[in-house]
Amino acid sequence: MAERHNLELKPIGIIHSPYQAGQAPYQGAGHEEIYRIEIFKEFEEGLKDIEGFSHIILICWLHKSRGYHLLVKTPWDIKPHGLFTTRSPHRPCPLGLSVVELVAREKNILKVKGLDAIDGTPLLDIKPYVPTIDERTNIKAGWLEGKVRAERI
Amino acid sequence: MAERHNLELKPIGIIHSPYQAGQAPYQGAGHEEIYRIEIFKEFEEGLKDIEGFSHIILICWLHKSRGYHLLVKTPWDIKPHGLFTTRSPHRPCPLGLSVVELVAREKNILKVKGLDAIDGTPLLDIKPYVPTIDERTNIKAGWLEGKVRAERI
Repeated sequence: MAERHNLELKPIGIIHSPYQAGQAPYQGAGHEEIYRIEIFKEFEEGLKDIEGFSHIILICWLHKSRGYHLLVKTPWDIKPHGLFTTRSPHRPCPLGLSVVELVAREKNILKVKGLDAIDGTPLLDIKPYVPTIDERTNIKAGWLEGKVRAERI
Repeated sequence: MAERHNLELKPIGIIHSPYQAGQAPYQGAGHEEIYRIEIFKEFEEGLKDIEGFSHIILICWLHKSRGYHLLVKTPWDIKPHGLFTTRSPHRPCPLGLSVVELVAREKNILKVKGLDAIDGTPLLDIKPYVPTIDERTNIKAGWLEGKVRAERI
């Protein structure tokens, strides 16, 4: 197969959310709403064995993102901070990243909780959440230290 | 500003790696090599305050990825598993995701360790790693349970 020469995205599914634009929580962790993730039928086989995972990582396209600023104010501080030290949806590449709990799978439908996406968000990728790959110890979270008090789930 | 109507990616930088294609480790966690991440000058202001974070999340474009299969064999098991339960670089959207240790910043250059990218990989986004957002407890890692024994860093 040829190498890829352009940065072209092909969504693998779509997120059905109880939230419309402007209504989603700032972070999904700790929230109990169930989201229905529809994986397009052509990709269903790639979900084999996913039921064994309690948590998965979703990367989505923040389709309502409109441009960006490099210094941003967030709900967590009155001072502006560098965009890449925030989780603002307004970024050069509007990619959303969430670790969610996988509650159930029915064929090409995943039911998850702990998400903050709005309805109709295109899903780009799913990765298994594996503590030895995705967690670190001795963390310093800079200006965000102690600011995001989402309930651990 | 207008809404985005297409899924167009604009890299924010480039990863300078000691590894060429085919040489990178399967997972970066636990490895000591230093990678030099060059953030393009136009985005440098977005790094303000990043020095306070011990770990950051990098999302990159796996530019050497060539197509994909929905069932894949990995180094961790003799049986094939669904693509979305693996971290294979060959995916419909070839997005790489790594939590790395931020060792130093010099203007628009970030020095990091714990990565597994090859030289020249386009960087799409940086997010702060925040345990209350990015970590979960009571994890079941499906068929990957106990298979990836990367040293925790």
